[in-house]
Amino acid sequence: MLGQMMHMPLTIGSLIDHAARFHSAGEIVSVETTGGVEHSNWGQVGQNARRLASALRKLGLEQGARCGTIAWNNRRHLEIYFGVSGGGFVCHTINPRMGPEQMVYVINHAEDQVLFIDATFVPAAAKLVQALPKCKHIVMMGPRDAAAAEAVPGLKFFDELLETGDAFEPWPELDENTASSLCYTSGTTGDPKGVLYSHRSTVLHTLGGNMPDGLNISAMDTVLPVVPMFHVNAWGVPYIAAVTGCKLVLPGPNLDGVSLVNLIDETKTTLALGVPTIWMGLLAALEQTGSKLPSLQRTVVGGSALPPSMIPKFAEYGVDLVHAWGMTETSPLGAMNQLLQRHTTLPADQQAEIRMGQGRPPYGVDLRLVNAQGAILPHDGVTQGDLQICGPWVVDTYFGMEAPALTGDGWFDTGDVATIDPEGFMIIRDRSKDIIKSGGEWISTVVLENIAISHEAVANAAAIAALHPKWDERPVLVVIKAGEVNEAELLAFYEGKVESWQIPDRVIFVDALPIGSTGKVQKNKLREAYGKVLLEA
Amino acid sequence: MLGQMMHMPLTIGSLIDHAARFHSAGEIVSVETTGGVEHSNWGQVGQNARRLASALRKLGLEQGARCGTIAWNNRRHLEIYFGVSGGGFVCHTINPRMGPEQMVYVINHAEDQVLFIDATFVPAAAKLVQALPKCKHIVMMGPRDAAAAEAVPGLKFFDELLETGDAFEPWPELDENTASSLCYTSGTTGDPKGVLYSHRSTVLHTLGGNMPDGLNISAMDTVLPVVPMFHVNAWGVPYIAAVTGCKLVLPGPNLDGVSLVNLIDETKTTLALGVPTIWMGLLAALEQTGSKLPSLQRTVVGGSALPPSMIPKFAEYGVDLVHAWGMTETSPLGAMNQLLQRHTTLPADQQAEIRMGQGRPPYGVDLRLVNAQGAILPHDGVTQGDLQICGPWVVDTYFGMEAPALTGDGWFDTGDVATIDPEGFMIIRDRSKDIIKSGGEWISTVVLENIAISHEAVANAAAIAALHPKWDERPVLVVIKAGEVNEAELLAFYEGKVESWQIPDRVIFVDALPIGSTGKVQKNKLREAYGKVLLEA
Repeated sequence: MLGQMMHMPLTIGSLIDHAARFHSAGEIVSVETTGGVEHSNWGQVGQNARRLASALRKLGLEQGARCGTIAWNNRRHLEIYFGVSGGGFVCHTINPRMGPEQMVYVINHAEDQVLFIDATFVPAAAKLVQALPKCKHIVMMGPRDAAAAEAVPGLKFFDELLETGDAFEPWPELDENTASSLCYTSGTTGDPKGVLYSHRSTVLHTLGGNMPDGLNISAMDTVLPVVPMFHVNAWGVPYIAAVTGCKLVLPGPNLDGVSLVNLIDETKTTLALGVPTIWMGLLAALEQTGSKLPSLQRTVVGGSALPPSMIPKFAEYGVDLVHAWGMTETSPLGAMNQLLQRHTTLPADQQAEIRMGQGRPPYGVDLRLVNAQGAILPHDGVTQGDLQICGPWVVDTYFGMEAPALTGDGWFDTGDVATIDPEGFMIIRDRSKDIIKSGGEWISTVVLENIAISHEAVANAAAIAALHPKWDERPVLVVIKAGEVNEAELLAFYEGKVESWQIPDRVIFVDALPIGSTGKVQKNKLREAYGKVLLEA
Repeated sequence: MLGQMMHMPLTIGSLIDHAARFHSAGEIVSVETTGGVEHSNWGQVGQNARRLASALRKLGLEQGARCGTIAWNNRRHLEIYFGVSGGGFVCHTINPRMGPEQMVYVINHAEDQVLFIDATFVPAAAKLVQALPKCKHIVMMGPRDAAAAEAVPGLKFFDELLETGDAFEPWPELDENTASSLCYTSGTTGDPKGVLYSHRSTVLHTLGGNMPDGLNISAMDTVLPVVPMFHVNAWGVPYIAAVTGCKLVLPGPNLDGVSLVNLIDETKTTLALGVPTIWMGLLAALEQTGSKLPSLQRTVVGGSALPPSMIPKFAEYGVDLVHAWGMTETSPLGAMNQLLQRHTTLPADQQAEIRMGQGRPPYGVDLRLVNAQGAILPHDGVTQGDLQICGPWVVDTYFGMEAPALTGDGWFDTGDVATIDPEGFMIIRDRSKDIIKSGGEWISTVVLENIAISHEAVANAAAIAALHPKWDERPVLVVIKAGEVNEAELLAFYEGKVESWQIPDRVIFVDALPIGSTGKVQKNKLREAYGKVLLEA
């Protein structure tokens, strides 16, 4: 027997419709790529989104057509998010930090028919365009610009394209499982793989991810997603912002510390979200600018491991740092670190230690640990295993592939090694492929790196597994100095902080670490360079 | 083109599974019907829910079978919520304040095969049982009790029934549109009508209703639903509590002010939810007990119009009262009154005035106003019209009826007259059938009643439309005195508070007002008694 409630599909069009209908005056502040700040609101964004969907239909696009974006976080990108998906097309966000070869690969693999680009990417587009046979329209996100028109033959302009659309054309009726957006993971090996989100997965992630123990955004908030809109839909913030009607601040291309401090202070941002690297820059800039971040209440930090100093450092400014974890394949919210009632009676240092972890899953997400044989491991906070995840906003099959990306029983393997405690608090111990297997015991490279980075003479550090004739693998530390320190001093610094057998065998000082397009250290390159250093010894 | 994310149905089983898996130690405090307090937790409730589903299958129930409950808010009722729905059966909550005839009607109309009853309802059940031919099993919610077994031949006992079930039997795989629960509206005229919720509507209401601008419940909260579990699923609180893992306090049968104050203080309740009548009793008891409600941060109040004094009165105790609005047909959350950023710059009295209204809809709900001809009216905060609603947790068709309960274009008419401002803030002006139509102008009975109640010599008041030879209808006020006041004094009290033509024509003093099973004044009975009083004059 079925229930007898209204049938209404969960669509991205309905998200922006809510914002435009009930929060039309809610502010959007957009730092433009070419400089200057633009002020808009949810009513205007909603109108332009409908207008864009209508204009794309008039261009002859059929439902399901992919539209790429190479753009920073700005107002037009927001309109593309809602207009493209709401119109029944697929919004394919492209990481501009990819190399040209990878970029050509993903655009051709996605078969993007339209490419929306920020003004700064016109020169890059001019070079790529010959290699993109399926791409029919390149649209610069701005008003007409003579120089750009000359650089890219046939270039269209966003503001003119909007003029051709009808803001009163209704959204098409869509099955909620229709594809809405596409984001490629930038794997360190092999070709990038595309995750094809649906309207349903996006709306459920929006609702499930904005619980009070999730991103917790209300209409009272002013939200600054520093996390890029080309990276896992800016963690879903644009959608969550729309359903809450909060004030949204889009920071454009300049993500240096001083620019962010000024933007937070000028817009009275209450919540900012981004990766640790961004906040390192911001914390450094605070001393430079003298700002005390009076408006900022919270930061949500994810994307890579949290430096231990970051929570107390933000606390000095009265800012609550919440650690979160996710992946492109998980929309991304897989866990957030919000404490439970019983934690409030623990001593402050124990609370701080818990908050360093990746946190617990929201409703919708389930997590488990398995060993190499696929046996399920206990949630005891100690046992390490491969972290697997399932839920309605987790990938099933990569775009264009035949076989599901899942285990036989339907879970997605994250490639991380983790522990989970009885209350679901999960700690990523390492990447499965990075963890060091020394004589049958596992050594976390993350732990070794955090200790190294806490040394005042270390600017950055990466620990890798180096092959060893007796122990199979042993840790080697690759370090960028920030001051005077030698190998013996640094190794001595580990004493008492880890078991003696976990201390690295060698320190190698370098001028730079190889960084991938998402800002993470490429450990495979380090292993290529230094993975045999202990064999040669 | 479809997205390629995991397909996972939204089911009530998944709600309790989340609670049991990630919040197993989260506390449940249950005031038992027969006295005493029981302590349980989400892990135990989850186990018992699965055990109950298994036991019901062993009793031979097939999917979709209806199971009635006549019970207060307690732990076993919570287990029935999740076990019955999770098991693929339909949980039909019955209002124990219904008269016996109505109760027999709804049980037979629902074709309940099982009836779960609290110990206090054994005598009532003994009288009803002959009139319930479809009901195969009556189950008392407790351990075996010899006297009860004698009173109702064949009576089963919940604790023994649980023993027959298997806690490790998995939930059946259900289509998310499967019926999950059933609640009858207690209309003032005609037979009660059943709203048949689905798993999908319930889960979406859980997620959409617990946004930060909704019920805003986190794992840090201790939540006391005073709103009964037999009334619109206790506003969805049991489901929301499960996904957040909060501490849940179930108050049992004693909802007098002193009992509630003590329970709030003993359990350190942070959020309590209920109808205004309950809070009137609680506020009176505060003076009696001397409690300052130190733990209580918020109350959510809905179900009937908010007395103007209630927000400031709670504020004296540091408690934030949030006004909410909904109906059985809307699961119930249709609107909640959380302010917007721009309101924070308004003077305090203007903020207070806005907060008196019913508030704005969450994402998922859309509201509109129409006139008698069905034309859509503006959201200008002034124009009054019939309030209509749609959304994925709004009724489509009443249980057992052929025709949808909707307008031709798919909206549900609430039977209320309201205004909506440009930002969606809705104010219920009256029930469509109660509003007084005087010479073509509409007079809100709610406004007249609020003024009367603010007079220190008035205990309660109801305004009704009385037929009038010249103006069609004119207002008459029916009043219970709390002190010395006469008709002329009370009418003079209206001067300057409303337009002169809105002042009632007559005051009638009574000893009691007729109250229906949901605690609301039955104005149809007052109109029957006093509706011709002006004609006779």
